[in-house]
Amino acid sequence: MGLAMTDRPTDPDLTVAEIGEFGLIDRLGRVLMGAGHDTLRPEATGEIGIGDDAALWQPTPGLREVLTTDALIEDVHFRHRTTSWRDLGWKALAQNVSDIAAMGATPTRAFVTLGLRPDTRIADVEELYRGMAGLALSVSELGRAFVIAGGDTVSSPFTMLSITVVGELAGEGLRRAAGRPGDLLAVTGSLGGSAAGLTLLEQGDAGLQHPDVASLVALHRRPQPRIVEGQTVAEAGVRCGMDLSDGLLGDAGKLAYASGLSATLEMERLPLPRALVRQFGDEQARMMALAGGEDFELLVAAPATVMERASIRLAEQSSDHDLIGRVVSLTVVGRLEKGPPGQVTVLDGHGQPITPPRSSWDHFRQAETQS
Amino acid sequence: MGLAMTDRPTDPDLTVAEIGEFGLIDRLGRVLMGAGHDTLRPEATGEIGIGDDAALWQPTPGLREVLTTDALIEDVHFRHRTTSWRDLGWKALAQNVSDIAAMGATPTRAFVTLGLRPDTRIADVEELYRGMAGLALSVSELGRAFVIAGGDTVSSPFTMLSITVVGELAGEGLRRAAGRPGDLLAVTGSLGGSAAGLTLLEQGDAGLQHPDVASLVALHRRPQPRIVEGQTVAEAGVRCGMDLSDGLLGDAGKLAYASGLSATLEMERLPLPRALVRQFGDEQARMMALAGGEDFELLVAAPATVMERASIRLAEQSSDHDLIGRVVSLTVVGRLEKGPPGQVTVLDGHGQPITPPRSSWDHFRQAETQS
Repeated sequence: MGLAMTDRPTDPDLTVAEIGEFGLIDRLGRVLMGAGHDTLRPEATGEIGIGDDAALWQPTPGLREVLTTDALIEDVHFRHRTTSWRDLGWKALAQNVSDIAAMGATPTRAFVTLGLRPDTRIADVEELYRGMAGLALSVSELGRAFVIAGGDTVSSPFTMLSITVVGELAGEGLRRAAGRPGDLLAVTGSLGGSAAGLTLLEQGDAGLQHPDVASLVALHRRPQPRIVEGQTVAEAGVRCGMDLSDGLLGDAGKLAYASGLSATLEMERLPLPRALVRQFGDEQARMMALAGGEDFELLVAAPATVMERASIRLAEQSSDHDLIGRVVSLTVVGRLEKGPPGQVTVLDGHGQPITPPRSSWDHFRQAETQS
Repeated sequence: MGLAMTDRPTDPDLTVAEIGEFGLIDRLGRVLMGAGHDTLRPEATGEIGIGDDAALWQPTPGLREVLTTDALIEDVHFRHRTTSWRDLGWKALAQNVSDIAAMGATPTRAFVTLGLRPDTRIADVEELYRGMAGLALSVSELGRAFVIAGGDTVSSPFTMLSITVVGELAGEGLRRAAGRPGDLLAVTGSLGGSAAGLTLLEQGDAGLQHPDVASLVALHRRPQPRIVEGQTVAEAGVRCGMDLSDGLLGDAGKLAYASGLSATLEMERLPLPRALVRQFGDEQARMMALAGGEDFELLVAAPATVMERASIRLAEQSSDHDLIGRVVSLTVVGRLEKGPPGQVTVLDGHGQPITPPRSSWDHFRQAETQS
């Protein structure tokens, strides 16, 4: 099927913005197939390939490795005006580590390629690295050393970070496509804090001394990847999961789509930071929790009995004196069911469907709209 | 020492262009040390870390893995006006594979992050992927499957490719720092072809039909990473090597510096493509072989007996009917000796020192000069 499609020439005027990120990834997969790449794929190594949060393979019996790679571009993914170099370093690395956590795996090494303007101040690049080193230390304190092990620096007309994180996986881990009808959907920690922090930053820093504002801004600037949580729920038997980078609404749709199912989310169940409700009121807080991105919590799906076991294991972990305050709990927010793949229904407190505030995120289309 | 240095505040006005790529890498390593990163480094895993062609670690006994990551930025590393999308795909991947070959390792997987303008034509991105798939097939034909296993696409104001290649290493492999006094220096294949191809392209495409011109342009556009060569010489006992990306003169200096030695190169020994001599004459051809970059041949150092064994093994490989025409030979071009680390002396046909045409390449300083 893929082979036949690649033989059809592509409309020479069609642009990336017109077909979007997912259409592009689909077409590039077909190009590889058409170029004989399908004959090369080492299925025997257990490779998942393009599409999940990270690539997974088994180089030798008893060792499963995961790898994720991502790039952040100035004025597309961050602005120097609103993001300090140190926060940028922390968040860029946290984002990639979160993709490893989303597999139920443990990050071990990061490789960082920096694109820098020649007139970039050394002191700023050092701050960037301090932010990354801070995140790496915070991850290492969970038990396993996580190091920045290499990389490259190149000249660039814009600041660009491209980060690769490698990790190891014990057991089966978490996959987007492993959801089953009737599975409960649950999230770690709380939602909407990052979107609230960004909103407060964009309104100006007048209230930054207020503890609520400071805590929401910290959630935006310094997300904590849920590594222990991902491993713990996977050990408890959860098979389906991903991280929340683009907002619960869009990401639940992606997980449901990968599993060939529909999803229902209940607004009343969304876990909210108390500071978020105090600053924005209950209704706006729930909208931010539903549609705001960059929380980097985990979204998992499992039968009720498995989800309960996972919650108990998490509670046990969080009472470990080395991990007190570092492990967050699970909250059930909805379920997977048979239906059009990727369809998400949002229910209000009375069980009535509501119209979601916006659809999923697409980097290219967003960029087109903004320009 | 590193700790004390990071406590001294950095001059706030100092820029990347002023200290250059190597100064920057040095400072960033110190930042990691100062942030407690030295306590995390898993020395026990055999990690080399920042500085060699690729990172190396041993996740489990009997398996050594290597990883390299690099970025190419539009108008810094390539121009769409002079490089087709398909050639760009081939060369970007070849360049990273060459870093794996430089370790004496076998590439197994590539991960590609693309930064694309929203108005980029899909047909162009497909061409880029066809170029990468072509290189991947050409590498796979050497014996071991090499696949593009994942990646990411992001919106960007300019075209950007960030590529990570993972591989496996049997045995000790090649390292820059492993040179010893008296070691011979040798290169695979021939030198200067890529620089000549670029020069011809910049002069316009009038002579592209001429077989000499076509062959030199092909050396520039479609470099062949020396994977079999790297593995074969490592198996024969060669311990020191790197790939030639920035030109023999500069790269021999880097290898000598890493080994704490000086190097001598003999102009008369440089292996030249016949087409290069016919098109540019002997003298200019030798200058291109000495200082022209992007040949992606290997530079290795070893005692004479080991180098002879490596040459014989390569000759045996190149007569393997599956590899005929795919394996190139070694040519001795100089030697390592005691002296100021990194100093390179170039001798003419009479054994007299000559003044090298230019010093090593620095991405940031080059960019500064050009702007």
